[in-house]
Amino acid sequence: MLHTPHGSVETPFLCVVGTAGSVKGITPSELRDVGAGVLLANTYHLFLRPGAEVVQQLGGLHRFMGWNGPIVTDSGGFQVFSLGSGLEHGVGKQIGMFPEEGTPRKPRGQAARLVRVDDDGATFTSHIDGSRQRLTPEISIRVQEALGADIALAFDEPTSPLHEASYTRTAMERTHAWARRCLAARTRSDQALYGIVQGGAFVSLREESARLIGALPFDGVAVGGSLGKSKADMHSVLDWTMREVPEAWPRHLLGIGEPEDLLSCAARGVDQFDCVAPTRLGRHGNLYTHAGKLLITRPEFREDARVIEEGCGCYTCRTGFSRGYLRHLFAANELLAYTLASLHNLYFILTLMQRIRDAIRSDALAELTAEFLTRYQPEPAPTEG
Amino acid sequence: MLHTPHGSVETPFLCVVGTAGSVKGITPSELRDVGAGVLLANTYHLFLRPGAEVVQQLGGLHRFMGWNGPIVTDSGGFQVFSLGSGLEHGVGKQIGMFPEEGTPRKPRGQAARLVRVDDDGATFTSHIDGSRQRLTPEISIRVQEALGADIALAFDEPTSPLHEASYTRTAMERTHAWARRCLAARTRSDQALYGIVQGGAFVSLREESARLIGALPFDGVAVGGSLGKSKADMHSVLDWTMREVPEAWPRHLLGIGEPEDLLSCAARGVDQFDCVAPTRLGRHGNLYTHAGKLLITRPEFREDARVIEEGCGCYTCRTGFSRGYLRHLFAANELLAYTLASLHNLYFILTLMQRIRDAIRSDALAELTAEFLTRYQPEPAPTEG
Repeated sequence: MLHTPHGSVETPFLCVVGTAGSVKGITPSELRDVGAGVLLANTYHLFLRPGAEVVQQLGGLHRFMGWNGPIVTDSGGFQVFSLGSGLEHGVGKQIGMFPEEGTPRKPRGQAARLVRVDDDGATFTSHIDGSRQRLTPEISIRVQEALGADIALAFDEPTSPLHEASYTRTAMERTHAWARRCLAARTRSDQALYGIVQGGAFVSLREESARLIGALPFDGVAVGGSLGKSKADMHSVLDWTMREVPEAWPRHLLGIGEPEDLLSCAARGVDQFDCVAPTRLGRHGNLYTHAGKLLITRPEFREDARVIEEGCGCYTCRTGFSRGYLRHLFAANELLAYTLASLHNLYFILTLMQRIRDAIRSDALAELTAEFLTRYQPEPAPTEG
Repeated sequence: MLHTPHGSVETPFLCVVGTAGSVKGITPSELRDVGAGVLLANTYHLFLRPGAEVVQQLGGLHRFMGWNGPIVTDSGGFQVFSLGSGLEHGVGKQIGMFPEEGTPRKPRGQAARLVRVDDDGATFTSHIDGSRQRLTPEISIRVQEALGADIALAFDEPTSPLHEASYTRTAMERTHAWARRCLAARTRSDQALYGIVQGGAFVSLREESARLIGALPFDGVAVGGSLGKSKADMHSVLDWTMREVPEAWPRHLLGIGEPEDLLSCAARGVDQFDCVAPTRLGRHGNLYTHAGKLLITRPEFREDARVIEEGCGCYTCRTGFSRGYLRHLFAANELLAYTLASLHNLYFILTLMQRIRDAIRSDALAELTAEFLTRYQPEPAPTEG
């Protein structure tokens, strides 16, 4: 159990991502219905628009979003990375992490960088209006305290899977210095603050980072930055990290949450996940089933009267909406397409998360994993572009 | 009461419009919650995409849309008109009918026409793929029977407020010939078919049309086409029509449904309305209140912590979403903006419709109208462009 000012939740759990202060196309009431417990909102997005003061003026993030359950805010570090090394290298946390966008991102080189990181913080170009903006550990904490989430994250500098050990070390050491400054800057005792472990996919760096962050007075830990070039790398990074941080700390694996990841990483002691996949995939017509993902926009579904998956308890399947209807809604760009697809995906993934919690309680996670993976076909990793 | 194969509904009622087979951004469950009873779907849109055979294959319109209440389908006549005279003249059913789109539409002249009407039917250019398509009375009925709505409408040729009496007569006589062909083409006894009265804002034509349609074996009547250049014209058109059609027939006023219209036209005996305004206005950030419409995207609402309207029982207001939050969602193009705004507007208008029904039962419609209009400021009609 994790206790927060807005209720207690069983672990492990998956945060549903409400980037800019809403889960795209889904009402809080629908979120409850699909089994959402915790939301994650992005400091970077809310800092730029509408601004932390506005959210505070409107009663804080819970009141703003109409969500009285726990909320996590990230620190803005990852979004700043995405505008910098992420864009330059054409990668996310892991190579090939964006299969739903078709081909992997193209590296765009140094010129594409919209951010400059220095030891004090990061200056970046707003994706909204092109204005120059600055985030530092102190600003990130001030913003997160104003937003008022239950769990805040330290400001960090993630690295990409294409960074060498030397730059990964530089960014890690910066992240450590920033971790101390975040702790010094915090003023709210009703808000948990998690440290972020960096170090890429380098065992010595991850261990060093986990030991250092684990020795600071944080309330939990998050695993950030590069998770290497494969699932095996990600699992190694987790193993190296988990054994070095305090036993009692909740552990958040940032930005990961595909079905196979929930199973394998829960087994490695992850307590918290967050992932835009269920809603983002949904908006692209990519729907979870126990046999793998189904791209509902394909012509073969035109006259398919079946629901997405027989026996599914989500609103979309329960109401009886056919694959043919969903395909039509996507073809016609009807807003309802995004809502119905996202509701299905959220239900699927949150139900799996619940099954994982049940299995852990009855010491049957290995059986659940074996059973699930017998049928489920994760998409093959896209080849490098 | 109006009895249909999918339940009975009290009159007068307002059909919520689900143009292409969904009410934009709103689930059937949310539709029930806001008090929707009857939906209206567009034959033109469903004929082009996904096609009537596909809807039929997927179990008919009710199953397709997940709506087990009554559904009306229009005939496609109005959409064909919109691509023809409507586009050419830059007008809808009435001059200045599109205030939410800013300035009135600019007339685009003969060259803009995407449709050619002849005595047999209409050939038009699909707005989706540019293909040439044809609708005739027989095709419209065949399509509507395949869709399987509870109430179908005869295929007609509407005219614009800028048409002279002579063309209005030509289109009216064509509409009369098509009405007979629609009746001859119908094969389903479980589907009501309403005739459409045309004749523009010309008293002799409207009376002639109403008498002729009223003498045919339809199940009800719809008032279509031009409603003149003012609300007064619209009321005259209604008065001329209503007194000529059979007492027992339900009467549908097509495409009208602003609050002040529901009040004034229910008083004139209208039983059925349909209007895209609640959802279309909502998606543009134009929100109904008892004092008039509120454009939530305006800067003054940035830090406004109040709900849209104090005391409103809609999901959006009941949950406590602030005006500032809604403004933010619109500024950030968040899908939830459209859902929350549409839910509010639908609740507002359907609740007013319920109050109108209650007032009619207790013979107090005049009092309700006076009370409502004391506070409500309809938007001033835009000046002609």
